[in-house]
Amino acid sequence: MSDETAASTPPVSFSAHPARYRHWRLTLTGQYATLAMAVDPQHPQRPGYDLKLNSYDLAVDIELADAIQRLRFEHPEVKVVTLTSERDRVFCAGANIFMLASSGHPFKVNFCKFTNETRLAIEDASAHSGQRYLAACNGTTAGGGYELALACDEILLMDDGSSAVSLPEVPLLGVLPGTGGLTRVVDKRKVRRDLADVFSTLAEGVRGKRAVEWRLVDGTAPRSKFPELVQQRAQALAATVSASKGPGIALEPVDPDTADGNLHYRYVTVTFDRARRTAELMLRAPVEPEPKTVEEFIARGAKSWALAAFLELDDALLRLRFNHEEIGLILLKTRGEIEQVHAVDAALAQCRDHWLVREIILHMARTLRRVDLTGRSFFAVVDPGSCFAGSLLELALAADRIYMLEDGVGSVKLATSELNAGALPMSSGVTRLETRFLGEPKRVAAALKENAPFATAHARDLGLCTVAADEIDFDEELRVAVEERASLSPDALTGMEASLRFAGSETTATKIFGRLSAWQNWIFIRPNATGERGTLSLYGKPERPGFDWRRT
Amino acid sequence: MSDETAASTPPVSFSAHPARYRHWRLTLTGQYATLAMAVDPQHPQRPGYDLKLNSYDLAVDIELADAIQRLRFEHPEVKVVTLTSERDRVFCAGANIFMLASSGHPFKVNFCKFTNETRLAIEDASAHSGQRYLAACNGTTAGGGYELALACDEILLMDDGSSAVSLPEVPLLGVLPGTGGLTRVVDKRKVRRDLADVFSTLAEGVRGKRAVEWRLVDGTAPRSKFPELVQQRAQALAATVSASKGPGIALEPVDPDTADGNLHYRYVTVTFDRARRTAELMLRAPVEPEPKTVEEFIARGAKSWALAAFLELDDALLRLRFNHEEIGLILLKTRGEIEQVHAVDAALAQCRDHWLVREIILHMARTLRRVDLTGRSFFAVVDPGSCFAGSLLELALAADRIYMLEDGVGSVKLATSELNAGALPMSSGVTRLETRFLGEPKRVAAALKENAPFATAHARDLGLCTVAADEIDFDEELRVAVEERASLSPDALTGMEASLRFAGSETTATKIFGRLSAWQNWIFIRPNATGERGTLSLYGKPERPGFDWRRT
Repeated sequence: MSDETAASTPPVSFSAHPARYRHWRLTLTGQYATLAMAVDPQHPQRPGYDLKLNSYDLAVDIELADAIQRLRFEHPEVKVVTLTSERDRVFCAGANIFMLASSGHPFKVNFCKFTNETRLAIEDASAHSGQRYLAACNGTTAGGGYELALACDEILLMDDGSSAVSLPEVPLLGVLPGTGGLTRVVDKRKVRRDLADVFSTLAEGVRGKRAVEWRLVDGTAPRSKFPELVQQRAQALAATVSASKGPGIALEPVDPDTADGNLHYRYVTVTFDRARRTAELMLRAPVEPEPKTVEEFIARGAKSWALAAFLELDDALLRLRFNHEEIGLILLKTRGEIEQVHAVDAALAQCRDHWLVREIILHMARTLRRVDLTGRSFFAVVDPGSCFAGSLLELALAADRIYMLEDGVGSVKLATSELNAGALPMSSGVTRLETRFLGEPKRVAAALKENAPFATAHARDLGLCTVAADEIDFDEELRVAVEERASLSPDALTGMEASLRFAGSETTATKIFGRLSAWQNWIFIRPNATGERGTLSLYGKPERPGFDWRRT
Repeated sequence: MSDETAASTPPVSFSAHPARYRHWRLTLTGQYATLAMAVDPQHPQRPGYDLKLNSYDLAVDIELADAIQRLRFEHPEVKVVTLTSERDRVFCAGANIFMLASSGHPFKVNFCKFTNETRLAIEDASAHSGQRYLAACNGTTAGGGYELALACDEILLMDDGSSAVSLPEVPLLGVLPGTGGLTRVVDKRKVRRDLADVFSTLAEGVRGKRAVEWRLVDGTAPRSKFPELVQQRAQALAATVSASKGPGIALEPVDPDTADGNLHYRYVTVTFDRARRTAELMLRAPVEPEPKTVEEFIARGAKSWALAAFLELDDALLRLRFNHEEIGLILLKTRGEIEQVHAVDAALAQCRDHWLVREIILHMARTLRRVDLTGRSFFAVVDPGSCFAGSLLELALAADRIYMLEDGVGSVKLATSELNAGALPMSSGVTRLETRFLGEPKRVAAALKENAPFATAHARDLGLCTVAADEIDFDEELRVAVEERASLSPDALTGMEASLRFAGSETTATKIFGRLSAWQNWIFIRPNATGERGTLSLYGKPERPGFDWRRT
């Protein structure tokens, strides 16, 4: 529906800065940060609803995602982030229902995917960046509000006789708590499944002692003692983080030039062929020398290619999801010298014990996971001048297919690097090579032990390209494949890719995206939710929903 | 829509017998069996379509499920079952598309669930009963036909220049190969994900050498040598099975008396309250002495309670799914002496090395997994006279909640048995106690070490009941809970239960039911598949589908 140049629906921009936050207040005090929700009801992402009671929409979550990212890069000294609310008696009421009710299906699905990725970024920061998250729920913590708390390491709830945690989606809205709530309640917090069943159907939620007994929260305190409890738990969490890090680097805006309807960043360009419903995403390797030492990484800051290019890629993926819904197939291309990419990967691997370099690698990993989770087809095109090496090879491995040209002289090449061995895992916790060669560790090892770039014939033998074709056939073979792909049912492709991309092990993250989200998407499209008499359509109106009672 | 007593749509019956098979031919030769598909096009499960080209519908799959079950109990001497076709040049064309296109959503979903359970029964027979399955694909093996082959231990394909394996659902029908196909291709057969992507979008499929190279099949042979190859592989598979078993026992029909609109079996009764959209499923413990030794189990045959009662439970679950779509909540009750159930469990555990007893336990496990996978709410009601012990405790643990009466004298009790320790695993590969106490092995052990029945207060301390209430409150609390549950969105409940019931580990089976099926259900309900211009609606008509191209 939306489009970078369309006038009717302005395209979504994903850039944010604390100085411009409308909905959050970020306060820093040494190793402690507070991220307080103070949603401005009058500034929703698009007109048509008010963001009452700290309910959120995409605009609110874009700021949250920005804050989590900045805390890692700009404020590495922070060991504990306390998520709380500036509103009295309300922590967060969850995703805004009028927003959901007035959104189209693809937007709803992509909104939930983005909020899920943001909550996983919180858990990623705790697990890998030594930044623990503490939810200080100083009031009503409902639906998506409780799901936000569930992403934190600890949840504290004010015991004031009214503040409760709840997942009222099923009883009040006829949809799921789909931002990880159902999965995290039983899988992460290990709430007993029958208690989780009662909890998830109890509109008013659970408070006080019972919330602790059921493991829904970790502690409670009366209003007068709540700040003291929060401070005490923040200190305890800080004590679990050993490393001291910093000073941080300043992130820079990544807004693309969209004047011609395409996306132009420094290292990334996305060119649309709207008639064919395809796009080409070109990622360029660095040309100038890149940092080789920790000192050089620090000096270069956000300008180092490894960070800048992947921030651009991340932004491009989000814009593709939200602003270009009809683009079904993305051709991934690279340009540059394999040696340059290899040099970057080697420096990253060499310096990875330093916090900043670790953050750069972790960001690469999150961005690549965003590719895996994007509901569009990806074909990687390995052609003359391309440089799919190491970190960029992961981009090709994330694609549904890899088309590789076999020229007469073997100049088209792929290459592995240290970063393919585990630094950039999928959501399933394993590498893309391990997923590709499921149950065949020898083939994974064979690919990893290549210490020089290898041409098409060898890449095919290693199992690293889907189609290898010579110069006579390549263009035609690719053209036919692109046309065929773009002609298939977009829904069937989304379901197919969600199944084939995640062979092997499952984690909480893949359960959220594969099991929980698939069910939520199903429920979103059912008449019982979005039909004329569905729960979402009638939300806030006096009529009661009219259910088709047939169970499936 | 359907109903046991409704005249318009006759209720589905799940009983079958080889003597009455219309669509399969079962041939037995010592340790080899051949199950040949020969679908009678003129006898679909309901009028409106022809079962051409060995395409299948529910009627065909009910016979297949019956054959798999009978082979285990009646023909335990069989070590290899060859699945093949009596048709020339067609192995199986998959689920009948006109049947799918003319079916309502709940039927489609439940049809796919049943066919998935049947294919898992094939894998269960191979893994636990020493009956290997060999797919001898002597012709076109398309869609659900290939998915049937994927459930087998080995797949052989005739190499005649035309026979191919294919999953044409995405390119031809705009839906998924949802009977495990996408999951098994990458997870079980470990086909590389990009080749799986190509394969799953190639309407004509893959044949000959390439099918072997891509791991889609295990071997091929020209028409003239195909029987020899099949025989040779069947012998090799037989050599992997050591135990010799038999003679078998004869299974008996389990058709219920439905004269009053309810389901009356010998040990199971299902009573409907259609106005409240609830049903009560009562399972009675044996009254007479049950077998204690292997000899007694053999002598009793299909009449032993452990087999007969669970066959009835299984049939009741299937009838609930297909014939009573609007029944949203099932109250599980038991009646009888805990000692009787304990005696049965002790005898089963004692004799479990004998093939027949092992089969009885495996059947119990499959039936209990059918409960986990049934898209209806279950509340177990533990009241005076109930006997939720051991194998029947699993039934309570499979429920979404357990309501337990606390009477003054402690006469209402639960009990564990040897069978709760691993003999009756969920689809996720772990026990229901392990799922209930995820990550808390001590609580699992505490429940298992109880060697006598325990009353409500202790059951609550062990974490085995959701709600314990005294005689003053019990009826009212249960009544309110039942009313509330029956008022909630049936779709939201299905999604919620599918998430909360399967905490913890995932397996191929849970990926099929959680990830693949959820996506398939989503696709089935989308306008791109079932709208006026959707792929299924227009199948076989000259018009081309009109897609909403927005990706999600």
